[in-house]
Order: sequence, then C-alpha cells, then structure tokens
Amino acid sequence: MQKKPLSDLFNQKVHALNLGLESMADALEQQETPVERLNWQPPERILPNLVYTIDDISIDQANDISCERITQSKAVLVGMGIARDVIPGMRENMILHAGPPLTWERMCGPTRGAVMGALIYEGTAKDEKQAEEIAASGDFIFEPCHHHNTVGPMAGIVSPSMPVFIVENPIYGVRAYATQNEGLGKVLRYGAMGEEVYERLRWMEKVLYPTLARALESMPKGIDLKSMIAQALHMGDECHNRNRAGTSLFLRAIAPALVRTQKDGEDTAKVIEFISNNDHFFLNLSMPTGKATLLPAEGIAGSTILTVMARNGTDFGIRLASMPDQWFTAPAGRVEGLYLPGFSEEDANPDIGDSTITETAGFGGFAMAAAPAITQFVGGSPELALKTTIEMYEITHAQHRDFTIPALGFRGTPLGIDVRRVAESGLLPQINTGIAHRQPGIGMVGAGILRAPKKCFDDAFFAFEQKYCKQKEKK
Amino acid sequence: MQKKPLSDLFNQKVHALNLGLESMADALEQQETPVERLNWQPPERILPNLVYTIDDISIDQANDISCERITQSKAVLVGMGIARDVIPGMRENMILHAGPPLTWERMCGPTRGAVMGALIYEGTAKDEKQAEEIAASGDFIFEPCHHHNTVGPMAGIVSPSMPVFIVENPIYGVRAYATQNEGLGKVLRYGAMGEEVYERLRWMEKVLYPTLARALESMPKGIDLKSMIAQALHMGDECHNRNRAGTSLFLRAIAPALVRTQKDGEDTAKVIEFISNNDHFFLNLSMPTGKATLLPAEGIAGSTILTVMARNGTDFGIRLASMPDQWFTAPAGRVEGLYLPGFSEEDANPDIGDSTITETAGFGGFAMAAAPAITQFVGGSPELALKTTIEMYEITHAQHRDFTIPALGFRGTPLGIDVRRVAESGLLPQINTGIAHRQPGIGMVGAGILRAPKKCFDDAFFAFEQKYCKQKEKK
Repeated sequence: MQKKPLSDLFNQKVHALNLGLESMADALEQQETPVERLNWQPPERILPNLVYTIDDISIDQANDISCERITQSKAVLVGMGIARDVIPGMRENMILHAGPPLTWERMCGPTRGAVMGALIYEGTAKDEKQAEEIAASGDFIFEPCHHHNTVGPMAGIVSPSMPVFIVENPIYGVRAYATQNEGLGKVLRYGAMGEEVYERLRWMEKVLYPTLARALESMPKGIDLKSMIAQALHMGDECHNRNRAGTSLFLRAIAPALVRTQKDGEDTAKVIEFISNNDHFFLNLSMPTGKATLLPAEGIAGSTILTVMARNGTDFGIRLASMPDQWFTAPAGRVEGLYLPGFSEEDANPDIGDSTITETAGFGGFAMAAAPAITQFVGGSPELALKTTIEMYEITHAQHRDFTIPALGFRGTPLGIDVRRVAESGLLPQINTGIAHRQPGIGMVGAGILRAPKKCFDDAFFAFEQKYCKQKEKK
Repeated sequence: MQKKPLSDLFNQKVHALNLGLESMADALEQQETPVERLNWQPPERILPNLVYTIDDISIDQANDISCERITQSKAVLVGMGIARDVIPGMRENMILHAGPPLTWERMCGPTRGAVMGALIYEGTAKDEKQAEEIAASGDFIFEPCHHHNTVGPMAGIVSPSMPVFIVENPIYGVRAYATQNEGLGKVLRYGAMGEEVYERLRWMEKVLYPTLARALESMPKGIDLKSMIAQALHMGDECHNRNRAGTSLFLRAIAPALVRTQKDGEDTAKVIEFISNNDHFFLNLSMPTGKATLLPAEGIAGSTILTVMARNGTDFGIRLASMPDQWFTAPAGRVEGLYLPGFSEEDANPDIGDSTITETAGFGGFAMAAAPAITQFVGGSPELALKTTIEMYEITHAQHRDFTIPALGFRGTPLGIDVRRVAESGLLPQINTGIAHRQPGIGMVGAGILRAPKKCFDDAFFAFEQKYCKQKEKK
C-alpha cells in the first residue's frame, strides 16, 4: 500500500454535521458544503454535585441497588380477595383512585363519574344525583391507590366491595393489588355510568371473581406473572396498551384449573369468554406486577430512580426511590391519539391512570419496540415504536435482566427512570394510554401517546438535590 | 447559490462499489480508493421467452390469478374425523407420508421409524421387527400426503386410524387435512418409536380427538384459522416453527366450547393442558390452512407460482400451479441448526416434512421478520429473520393482502414463489425446520434453517419453458 498523500486532506470534500447555531450550517451551505443539521440540544444541566450525596453515597450505586431490586423481583398471582378484606388500610368509607392525591373538588370528569358509579354499584347511592351529593359530602375518604400498594387503570377507582388480584413478590415479601379488568368502551374505569356498567361489575363480583379465585386456590404455586410478561414481550405485547398475548397466556395457564374447580359449566364457559373477549384483561395483572417489582426499591437512600409515575386525570405525579412518600406533580398532559368514531380531541380528558407503573417498571411504552402492532391502537408508526424504546435508554439507569426485546437483538428493556438523566437530556418518558371522555358517565373515546410533563421531574430533581446534595445551610 | 465548479469532479475522492470481477476492486484499492465489494451476481438467466406462453397467456397475469386465489382464500376449521373416513382416496392399507413420492427402499430413517410406529399403533404389527417386514412386503401402499389434500409435518405419516383436522376453504369449496400435533421430542413424526409414543397416539385418538371434535360440532361457524394466522403474525409467530401465539389463540377460541360440551371435567382439563404444554400444537392447523389456501391455485395455466414445497427426508419436491400433478425433485438438504443436548449435526437427517407449505403460502420462514424470537429455537439472529423476509420479496410475485408484518410497516408477507424469479436471481427459498435423528426410532434432535435445493427449481423452470414457451418441434 502506498502512503496516503497529505494533499488528500485538502482535496477531500467536506461533509458537515451541524450542532447548535443554525447560522453555522447556513454559512457552510452557501459554500456548497452539504450539512446534516442535527436536532441536538446541549445538556439542560451540568450535574457536578449529583454523583455523590453529602453522606458520600454514590448515587449510581444507589441506583444500581434500586434497579437490581426491581429486576430480581418476582411477581406471582397468589390469590384474590375483596378490597375491604385484603388491601392494607382499606376502609368501608374509603374509595381509592389513580394518581397522586386530590380532593373531590379537583377531580376530573371521568374520575368523578367512576366515583359516582362505584357508590351506586356499592348500593351507597341510589342514583347519580345522590352519588354526587355523597361524594361531595366528605363522608367518603379519597386516597391514591398507590398509598395502599394498589394500582388502578384510568380513573383507578377501587371501592370496598370490589374483588382484587393479589400479586406477591416472594423475593421481598411484598404484595400489590388491582381490580379485574372490565373490558373497553362503556366501563367504570373510563368514567362510564349506567346499568350496563353496574351489571357487569356485579357479575364480575358474583361470578368472575369466585370462579377465578377458586381456580387460583387450586394452584399452590400461583401464576408467575413476571415470566408471563417476559414471554408476552416476545409475542408483540408491551403489556400496557397491548395485552393480547398476556391475556392469551393467562388463559392458557388458568384454564385447566378453571375446569377442575368448576361448580357450573356455563359459568366457567362465560368466564373464559369474558377473558377471551377482552385483550386488555391482562393489563390488571401486568400493572400489579409492575408495582410488586417496584415496591422493593422504595426507600433506597440516595437513589434518583422513579418508583411511581401516575396520573389522576388532573395531575401527573412521580415518586423517587429515595423519597418514597413524596409526590412531585404537574398538570396532566393532553394525549395525541386515535379516536373512536364520533369522538375527537375536544372530548378527551387529560392523561389519567396508574398504568404508567408499567413504564416505570421497564415495560409498557418503554418496551414499544417489542410491540410494533400497538400502533394500530395508539397511533404512531412501527418506526416510532422502535425509536421510543431506543430513546428511553437515554433516561434509564439499567436494562432489565428478564424483559428482553427480540427485535433489538434480545436487549433488555430500558429500566429505572433516573431523574438526573431526564434533567440532563431534557428527554421525557414516553407513555401510551387509553383516553377517557372528559365528562363523567361516558367512557372510553380513544387511545394515544404522550410524554410525561417536565415540571414534576424538575421538582423531583431539585428536591433530591436539596435533600441529598446540599449542605444544610441552617447548620 | 453559486454554480458548482467543474473542477470539483476531479478534486472529489472516488468511492467505488464493485460488482463482479474482484481484480477491478483490487486495482482501485492499490490506488487507495475505498471499495465496497458487493456480493452481487449477474442474473443467472435472461428470460425473454418467459413473458408470454406460446398460447399468448401473460405469465404475470396467470401469476396474478394464482396469488389472488391464494390471498382471497379463507380457511376454517370445520370439524375432525378419522383419516380412513374423511381423507379423499385414503384406504385401509395405505400410509401417507410427507414430501414427494418414494418407495420403502428409499425412505430415510425417521420416515421408516414413523411408518413402523404407525403400523404398531394401528395394531397391524406387534413389534418393530414385524412392522419392518410388513412395510417392506408391499402389502401397504405409500403415497404422499399431498396426493390426498393432506399435509404432515416431519415424516408426515398418516395411517388409517389417525384423527385429522378438516380445514375448509369456503371460497373455493376445497378441504385440506392434517393430524393432531403430538408435541416435541420423542414423537412419531420425528421417527420415534416406543410405548410412550403409541400411548400418546392412543390418548390423542380416544380422548383428545373426541373432546375437540365435540367442541367443534358445537361451533357452527367453525374456527377461522386464516384470521388466527394473521393475528399470530402480529404476535411474534411465523406459524411454522413458532406457534406459541397461534396455539394460545386457538385455545382461547375453543375453550368455551370445550367446557360447554364436556363429558368428563378431568378429560377436558387434560386436553387443555396437552394443548397448552405444546407451543407447536397450532402447526398442524397452520399447515392445512396453507394447503387449503394454495389448492385453488392448482391448475392455473401459464402460472410459474409454486403450490407445493415438500420434503420426505430423502428428496425435496416442488409443484407448479400450472403443472399441479408433476413433482420436480432434488436431494433433500442438510439443515444448519441448534441441537438438543447430546446430539450434533452427525445425527441429523436431511430436511423433511410438508411444513414448507407455510413458506409456499406466504408465511413460515417467509414471515420470519414477524418472529424475531424464533431465532432462539432455530438459530440465526433477529437481523437474519428480518433480512430473510426482505430477501424473499425478490423471488415472490405478490404480497399477501391479509398477512402483514408490523415491523415492516405492516407490509404484506412475500407471497407466491415464482420459479422465474428464482432462476433469474439465483436466490433460493429460505426454510426453517425441526431436525429428526437420521435413524428410525429416536425422534427430534434440533431445529434450524436452510435453503431449498436449486436443482428442483431449475428442473421446474425448464419443464415450464418446454411446455409453455417452446414451439413444439415435432409439429
């Protein structure tokens, strides 16, 4: 090989990548030099103080611990029960809702609708008017599901008589809870009211619940939900808004026990049909799986990893592993979506539900690359699904050990949203979600995608900095 | 903008793509010019005569008709029956096998093993020795499954007492047949023998078959298998060697009817467990679906589209839409695969089975891009899965209307293998497959991938040319 002549350096055409000032690119183009303009932003913040806490805890190591705990966790469906009997702290005059705390006065339409519907379903109110009066009276306590290790999709209403799944994390001895999924359309969790809604809820209490509970009692090992999510991620689900594979796998797992423990064949057949006709049935199992695996990361000192992202339709709230009792909130965002016939963006309530526990736990929107077909439900394109996952690696601390994405060469899903990385990159978590009508009593109007709001991440970042990285000035 | 100076053309560095002669690339590299060497071959054949037949049929139009018939077809599981009662032309002393015709003398180990096992299962022979004598005696007629609108995975043995699925194409009024899938490992279709194998086959005849058949009788619309494949392709299956989603969807569809028509709860539970424990159960439904949709393309004059690719473990054979009764064969290929513990390439029988009906019908290996996780079973990488599908568009005439691949932007799967395009491009159909031990009586040893052998495509191409495009010289 000949030696390369130096002159080549001058003869070669320049091809430029431009970051930052547009005028730089303009100047090059005027000189006929091709420029690729990168949509790059300088880091929003330089974070010299956020490597060690003032107590000399390495934040990265604290985050390692958080992510290790999440990824090592298991989640097993061990049984079912009635909310008043099994949910810790649940009381007869209490109603749980999705997202951060809020009062009746600040509740959005679908949450109000679901609360009123629950009061009618409970028999506490005889009609919507009375339900509204009772809800506003202060006789009922409203608390976030998350304050009771529970997660609820959309409005996320859990009233005392509702049956719930009990999901155990045997590695850390914690449990999470969620109601049974009602299906799509005119359903309580989307704020719908009416006899159709209450009748379904009663059937779910009187037939679906005892049938499933009996089957589960006959399965001493329970049902390994975490492994089911791992499989479903290889079957085109991301286990937030696409749960067709998860629902199928759940039915495969429980069907033999349903048959062996049945009291009435027709009831069993109807239970199987109810599950089979609702591809979202598994959502109410994937959500408590997420919660059960995130609980062990709550309380890890110095960790900047999120353990909760949740919305109540008014506010979006997050909590950090190192500050597990504190909510950081911002107004809930508007969803870009696909609408059911007859509905449009004007009908849409802002973002709502605890289902963002899935993204927080390393699946859902963060695993969209595993589920390109979801774009038929939430909009966007298969390319967007792929890009979303790839981008979320930028704001997460780790990759999941057990949840992998075949299309990315079996790479682990992005796990552990780090508020430092969100602050540094300016990238916000991607969420996909159902859309509820903004008025009480109507129900589902569509599904779509959006980003989490920046403000709550900023607030969490500053609060963390304040608590863990600043010398206390008063001392 | 300034005008581009001509001198730029000389100052610019040359970057070369080299096709063909390597010495050209070498010369450029000696002058320090970067060369990308493309692995490109000139077309194997220029095909001026193969646009119209001598009867002035446009071959492309004939192929349009073939592909249109395949894509418009439906496939519905309408019932079950015993081979001797329902398979057209089946006789009491007949055994069907996979692939093109062959005699006992030329049968490979696993096919021999499966024939002998079938004779013992039938009660015709009392042991392996007697079974071998009967098989060699000429008292039994061996015919390809494909001669009876039937498809059999691996050895593909169908004996008179075996229950079969009946899959109807209601658009064209044709039916296809396949046995029930036994699972993996030591099973008849991989050539295994022994009491474990016969006992399972007897249970499949006495319990599985009547239980499923009763359920199907109660479903007047049957089960739409084509739509199930379309869904499974969005759930990480390609429906040849990955059928986890298809099996799940099938169970979802039939489970309510299983419960409603049950005679014995424990039998029903065992049937559900048998299906649920075998992710390949759906293969024996996806295969007759492929066959049922390809049958209407048989007999389209002037069409160069394949309607059959099948292997008997000795020969690989194909048939053309325009010459549906003629087999073109070549020696069956060696599979590159992943082996079960204790086995290696030395143990492998050549490529075997009718399951290549899936690739022929526009799914299976041709839809591997939909099933990146399959590479854990058959080897290769998710990139290979993607590339395989993209490459297969080069040798197919159309894209499937109803089978789409989310990861490729919901593009239709490559449909209709055109022998002209195979001849022109030199690209051979990609297949994925299970691997049987080459000796009779052992069973499955692995799974892998390979290409169809070139010779049978060459032969088919020449035969077509001879029949359709040459002036008959004797006239």
